Amino acid sequence: MSIRVGIFGYGNLGKGVEAAIRQNSDMTLAAVFTRRNPATLKIQTEGVPVLNIVKAEDMVDEIDVLILCGGSATDLPSQTPEMVKLFNVIDSYDTHAKIPLHFENVNNEAQKSGKVGIISVGWDPGMFSLNRLYASAVLSEGKDYTFWGKGVSQGHSDAIRRVEGVLDGKQYTIPTESALEAVRSGAEPELTTRQKLIRECFVVAEEGADKARIEQEIKTMPNYFADYDTTVHFITKEELEKNHSGIPHGGFVIRSGKTGFNKEHNHIIEYSLKLDSNPEFTASVLVAYARAAYRLNSEGVSGCKTVLDIPPAYLSQKSDSELRKELL
Amino acid sequence: MSIRVGIFGYGNLGKGVEAAIRQNSDMTLAAVFTRRNPATLKIQTEGVPVLNIVKAEDMVDEIDVLILCGGSATDLPSQTPEMVKLFNVIDSYDTHAKIPLHFENVNNEAQKSGKVGIISVGWDPGMFSLNRLYASAVLSEGKDYTFWGKGVSQGHSDAIRRVEGVLDGKQYTIPTESALEAVRSGAEPELTTRQKLIRECFVVAEEGADKARIEQEIKTMPNYFADYDTTVHFITKEELEKNHSGIPHGGFVIRSGKTGFNKEHNHIIEYSLKLDSNPEFTASVLVAYARAAYRLNSEGVSGCKTVLDIPPAYLSQKSDSELRKELL
Repeated sequence: MSIRVGIFGYGNLGKGVEAAIRQNSDMTLAAVFTRRNPATLKIQTEGVPVLNIVKAEDMVDEIDVLILCGGSATDLPSQTPEMVKLFNVIDSYDTHAKIPLHFENVNNEAQKSGKVGIISVGWDPGMFSLNRLYASAVLSEGKDYTFWGKGVSQGHSDAIRRVEGVLDGKQYTIPTESALEAVRSGAEPELTTRQKLIRECFVVAEEGADKARIEQEIKTMPNYFADYDTTVHFITKEELEKNHSGIPHGGFVIRSGKTGFNKEHNHIIEYSLKLDSNPEFTASVLVAYARAAYRLNSEGVSGCKTVLDIPPAYLSQKSDSELRKELL
Repeated sequence: MSIRVGIFGYGNLGKGVEAAIRQNSDMTLAAVFTRRNPATLKIQTEGVPVLNIVKAEDMVDEIDVLILCGGSATDLPSQTPEMVKLFNVIDSYDTHAKIPLHFENVNNEAQKSGKVGIISVGWDPGMFSLNRLYASAVLSEGKDYTFWGKGVSQGHSDAIRRVEGVLDGKQYTIPTESALEAVRSGAEPELTTRQKLIRECFVVAEEGADKARIEQEIKTMPNYFADYDTTVHFITKEELEKNHSGIPHGGFVIRSGKTGFNKEHNHIIEYSLKLDSNPEFTASVLVAYARAAYRLNSEGVSGCKTVLDIPPAYLSQKSDSELRKELL
């Protein structure tokens, strides 16, 4: 029997979930919910209903897991607790500081409804969190490092576009090789953010704009660029579209630790992601955890969970004995 | 309350467990069991009894988890099912092909005794298995690669020492950069073992021995070296002791996969270990899973488990809410 998945919100992440469901033979897309007029929305999967989000409650018998694809700022804080009243849900809530509050809100409703809600699924929080946990549990004494990039930062790209004379722009966050090498050496360095990453900007300027002034304004922008080594490249609109239209991202989680009676041995655990499409990868993680939510709830589990609570085997289509034979 | 840990077998791995317990403030070493005469064995922790293995059953009330530090060839197949009759146990059973059988044997006894046995804990099987599972569950369509090294291969070092005229020797298995780069490119290459790794040998020859003949014999040795690119360096006994007395190891687990409606996006997930001491790192993993075994059994769980079954949060000293706040 196929796991019937609903998508709640059809932006880049929702589209990524739709694509990921096709790659998992034990799942089918049951419905897509949107705030827009459903008639205006064209999805890629034939024969699947597109409904307004107010119709979600009519679909409780048709959906095993609902994947919430809204944003962390305003959508998920209300949508996840609301929807877990009706469905097993997965979200990618990524406002790190507010995760404990979000957890409580979702857990309260999930306990009452008897459903499972897995929150903060993706790569950070998500796969990076798992790696921070495993590495720090294994190497009790050591130091953790997380580097983001190379990838597009939406917030910094928006900041560039607000500079006068800028038509369009894209900003890449890039970890510095020197910082990565220092961490991999086992020296456990203290690193400033300036040492850890550089910011590279590709800017399309208006005709006749003062490029020197634009570059200066970007490089000295407080919070966004002033504290970093920033480079600015002026390119044409065509170059921006051709070479910088993707949404790549990635990063590194590294733990450096010591063992031995005299702490004489160094160990480096490194996890890295190099992603052509940030939303499609995040969507693929969401879909794997949708499988886990379904299985847990089928076994009678309810409440809010995070990736840290889920036994890894629950993510796989394979049976426990297949996993032991093939992967262990 | 401290988790009371017993060590069963006091070789390199057992010593590593003793050192790792000191790095975990929620654990204490309760006893060390040995097949040797206990009076001849000097351990590093004061006030802890050293007992013959036949005394284990007298210690059931003093030990919460017993960590089995014997070998996979002859010790663990009998010791793990035997000891799980009395204790929660952890082992590092690493004969991949026989894991399903070992699992059944341990599970049968653990179900009867009401204890938890976590088998095949370490880095491969262990942390590498976890990474193969997570990566393949997230990127459903793709290809997995495991590379071992740079590290000492005991079996290959032994093989060198059996060559006539060789006094001592050490063999390092080293992944080739060209193979790693090909995998990281997303090309999903098919790689032979010759393409994936090289073998580097450091050999101490007897005085007057025919080095050309020794080198030739090593390089053409069937199974061990004939199918690989092998280099042989002749060094002095002093150089071997000074530069090659450690037991380093490590490796890489890489998954290359595609997402998107037309599989247009590549993603690379890479996990790597660089270990100064193979046994001490393995011991550190065993100790983290000892915590999980204790907690699971305290909650009434019994039976055989592997790393794939254990919720990650069970490995940590921190509470679930601390983990959500600090690591997620």
